[in-house]
Amino acid sequence: MAALFHGVERLFLKHTARWWPCHQPASSLPLVGRVLALRINLPGLTETRQGRCVHSGAVRTSQASTVHRLPFTTVSQQDLDFFEQLLPGRTITDPEVLESNNVDWLKSVRGSSEVLLRPQTTEEVSQILRYCNERRLAVCPQGGNTGLVGGSVPVFDEIILSTSLMNQVLSFDSISGILTCQAGCVLENLSHFLEERDFIMPLDLGAKGSCHIGGNVATNAGGLRLLRYGPLRGTVLGLEAVLAEGKVLNCLAALRKDNTGYDLKQLLIGSEGTLGVITAISIMCPRKPRSVNVAFLGCSSFQQLLDTFQHCRSMLGEVLSAFEFLDSACMRLVEDHLRLANPIKESPFYILIETAGSNAVHDEEKLHNFLEEVMSSSLVTDGTVATEESKIKVLWALRERITEALRHDGYTYKYDISLPVEKIYQLVEDMRGHLGIRAKSVVGYGHVGDGNLHLNIVSPTYDPALLSAIEPYVYEWTAKHHGSISAEHGLGLKKRNYIHYSKPPEAVAVMRNIKAMLDPKGILNPYKTLPDAIPSHVP
Amino acid sequence: MAALFHGVERLFLKHTARWWPCHQPASSLPLVGRVLALRINLPGLTETRQGRCVHSGAVRTSQASTVHRLPFTTVSQQDLDFFEQLLPGRTITDPEVLESNNVDWLKSVRGSSEVLLRPQTTEEVSQILRYCNERRLAVCPQGGNTGLVGGSVPVFDEIILSTSLMNQVLSFDSISGILTCQAGCVLENLSHFLEERDFIMPLDLGAKGSCHIGGNVATNAGGLRLLRYGPLRGTVLGLEAVLAEGKVLNCLAALRKDNTGYDLKQLLIGSEGTLGVITAISIMCPRKPRSVNVAFLGCSSFQQLLDTFQHCRSMLGEVLSAFEFLDSACMRLVEDHLRLANPIKESPFYILIETAGSNAVHDEEKLHNFLEEVMSSSLVTDGTVATEESKIKVLWALRERITEALRHDGYTYKYDISLPVEKIYQLVEDMRGHLGIRAKSVVGYGHVGDGNLHLNIVSPTYDPALLSAIEPYVYEWTAKHHGSISAEHGLGLKKRNYIHYSKPPEAVAVMRNIKAMLDPKGILNPYKTLPDAIPSHVP
Repeated sequence: MAALFHGVERLFLKHTARWWPCHQPASSLPLVGRVLALRINLPGLTETRQGRCVHSGAVRTSQASTVHRLPFTTVSQQDLDFFEQLLPGRTITDPEVLESNNVDWLKSVRGSSEVLLRPQTTEEVSQILRYCNERRLAVCPQGGNTGLVGGSVPVFDEIILSTSLMNQVLSFDSISGILTCQAGCVLENLSHFLEERDFIMPLDLGAKGSCHIGGNVATNAGGLRLLRYGPLRGTVLGLEAVLAEGKVLNCLAALRKDNTGYDLKQLLIGSEGTLGVITAISIMCPRKPRSVNVAFLGCSSFQQLLDTFQHCRSMLGEVLSAFEFLDSACMRLVEDHLRLANPIKESPFYILIETAGSNAVHDEEKLHNFLEEVMSSSLVTDGTVATEESKIKVLWALRERITEALRHDGYTYKYDISLPVEKIYQLVEDMRGHLGIRAKSVVGYGHVGDGNLHLNIVSPTYDPALLSAIEPYVYEWTAKHHGSISAEHGLGLKKRNYIHYSKPPEAVAVMRNIKAMLDPKGILNPYKTLPDAIPSHVP
Repeated sequence: MAALFHGVERLFLKHTARWWPCHQPASSLPLVGRVLALRINLPGLTETRQGRCVHSGAVRTSQASTVHRLPFTTVSQQDLDFFEQLLPGRTITDPEVLESNNVDWLKSVRGSSEVLLRPQTTEEVSQILRYCNERRLAVCPQGGNTGLVGGSVPVFDEIILSTSLMNQVLSFDSISGILTCQAGCVLENLSHFLEERDFIMPLDLGAKGSCHIGGNVATNAGGLRLLRYGPLRGTVLGLEAVLAEGKVLNCLAALRKDNTGYDLKQLLIGSEGTLGVITAISIMCPRKPRSVNVAFLGCSSFQQLLDTFQHCRSMLGEVLSAFEFLDSACMRLVEDHLRLANPIKESPFYILIETAGSNAVHDEEKLHNFLEEVMSSSLVTDGTVATEESKIKVLWALRERITEALRHDGYTYKYDISLPVEKIYQLVEDMRGHLGIRAKSVVGYGHVGDGNLHLNIVSPTYDPALLSAIEPYVYEWTAKHHGSISAEHGLGLKKRNYIHYSKPPEAVAVMRNIKAMLDPKGILNPYKTLPDAIPSHVP
């Protein structure tokens, strides 16, 4: 049981008014009080105590400072009655149902919410927030709950406001390719809807089967198509959101151009549910490509990989839709743990290149010319190409299933770093040198085209000493090289206190003012995105 | 002289404390007081009175409500001394030099600023704003002064803060294509800089020879490449700005992905200098295309033009870089006034299609297949193609020089409307029906690919009755069809009071709060973007 509390140093229980050291097994914790949130950065915490709620708690982890529950109101029976009247049958209090909404999908963060609300309309969301704001009840907006930084689950007893029943396509214009839909539409469902109409979504993610488009927009998700179709900040044309006080902000214009005043939707994009609840979006969708090819290549060095990228951008030009990489350590992981076969000869680095275009003959010719160039100049040592969908999937799996393979390898410390592209692998190498034998492995993969490295460090089990060696080293290294400590995952609960590595104090101050302006009582997704106001050093 | 005051109904002069009817010739206006701003929507106002400044004034035009000078401080000799010490030789008070900075390039709006400041560094901008904020001196940030809505010139005696000497390229990364430069770089200079390095700017405008990139970003300029490379909201990766109180907001990251907190740069993009002065930007630049082709085609109906657009997007796919249109009335204007030759047989509608790609053979083949398809199906009645640069320019001139031709045709009422693409020409037709013989001509052209119509109505001279027939009809029509009353030009001074046609009151309220938060004394570009707080109906 002790393993359940890895990463948590000690817990504060109000009832006993003292700190409880966490090397004690969980089962020995007194049940008279209730710990309202246990925040740890590793899987395994599978139990929430259902004792009498004392509505105060504090947790300290070794990676983030202690979070204290803010003085929000506790949900009362009267509140439940109100919600049940507003959302009959859609006000959920069954702990078993709530379980999956309280825990993030990495199983690294757990809240203890006792209410899940499932509105179907914007008006219902508005009524919920108006009521919660009036009563000072904290709310955690939740989409598909696939976030990686603990942003989508409650920290304490926040009411969970799920968009899962807001899943209607509102309109699609086959001339402009503009889709308007509710926030709770699952990304993959939208993709199917569009593919039947010869269009595609401008974003694609590993979590597409679960994630909601509203959550994608709220976290400014990046993913696999960003290189080609750009960020959501360009493709999302409009959105509707409900602000903390219940006001509906309707900026749902389905127009490619609109310069009438400040672009408020941009404040909501990437705000992780802290400034408003996104209820609907309109997004510009590209035509479905007629032809897709994937090449999987090997390189002897990262410099050769970068040179290959330069040739690739020049020769594949407008049909290049992905340029991903993995190192040999990643390849070994997918070979060992998932029994995937390396389709080419062993190399220090592997590249996955995808083309997507409107003319198969032209695309294949471009790809052929490019491959001839990089193989004849020895930039690439070996390679294979797939044009059939099933073979394409096999190649993509080598890149997409690394996360899964890592889970089998031990405890993983995950970092999502953005850097000038020529620097991205240097961080992996420097980290390897820095950690030496303390880490089981240090691996790197990611989106070269976007300068986005997924750095993962593995140890057999969770090791606080190793973590202290990684952080803040990784953040300091990133800041020194003008990178971002969160390229596409956001800050959520886990990384909010590291924001100063990527943003100056003036910017954080403006962010705080925006939060205070739009959500004066701070009820929307508290403890997320913005750093703790006061250094919460607990004696 | 009376013509000089077309569009202005009457002027309020503080000294005489009465309204002066504007059918009086300007020369008969009493010189004891000074009119601090004359805002009219037509060219011709060529004189500013240099009497003793009374620092109060009000102007009423038939298109916008009266603007009263807000109680900002007047620039004193002490202020000038401070500026001269801070910016020796770059504090300009010569009225002749100031002339071109006080008048917009349409010559439709005139301010009466007596000071022009030319900082070279962000630190200087910071010191200027800190001082002005402290002293409550109003400031009008100015780039290349090529705006079309009166946003870039002072309305009264605001200090003009020009970015013209902030014209340094700070860095360029030839791997990522990310350019970082000061705000005052002229767009065309940046284009030349990049073309030498085999890249291009992701935006292109008619005003490229004068406009500053900072102004482009401050107005969220659209232009000719948006269809292909997306809006500045996607391509601008970072920016640095000075806020009203002098604080430098450094969000100049040159990263494609950065999800660390709210994206503050988006507030500055399109805020028309009302929230901060943009001092530097980083922008992602695409590779220079290896091959460019232009086709100029004729269509019998707008429906056929839309069908052609559908085929075009499908068959040209990723190499399509522009799909522009003009109607036969536009063609007649460029033929009559500029002596340009129609290269194809007369048609009700003309299309200009540009392709830009990485492989000339492929691009030409795609274009050929597309043309064969649309000509054999009679969607297109005639056409011509250019691949040589000089011939491409000739074809582009037919589209780009319409504005110039309109100037020769009479007084032009200009509207920049965004609509669902299938509706864009209906507005032109409805306007024609609505105005009947009252208008000399009603013409439409624009960016079909972006759903952006430039609607222009011509009368022999300025005609207030005609204007009353156009407005608010044009705005009501646009709102009814879910369009935007300003697609790419912004709101500036001229359109700020029409914002409610495109944005709900809740959104405008949030915008006001943002303005109050970032610029509490309202010194930055007052009278712009946001509507007048109080309906200023003067008895």
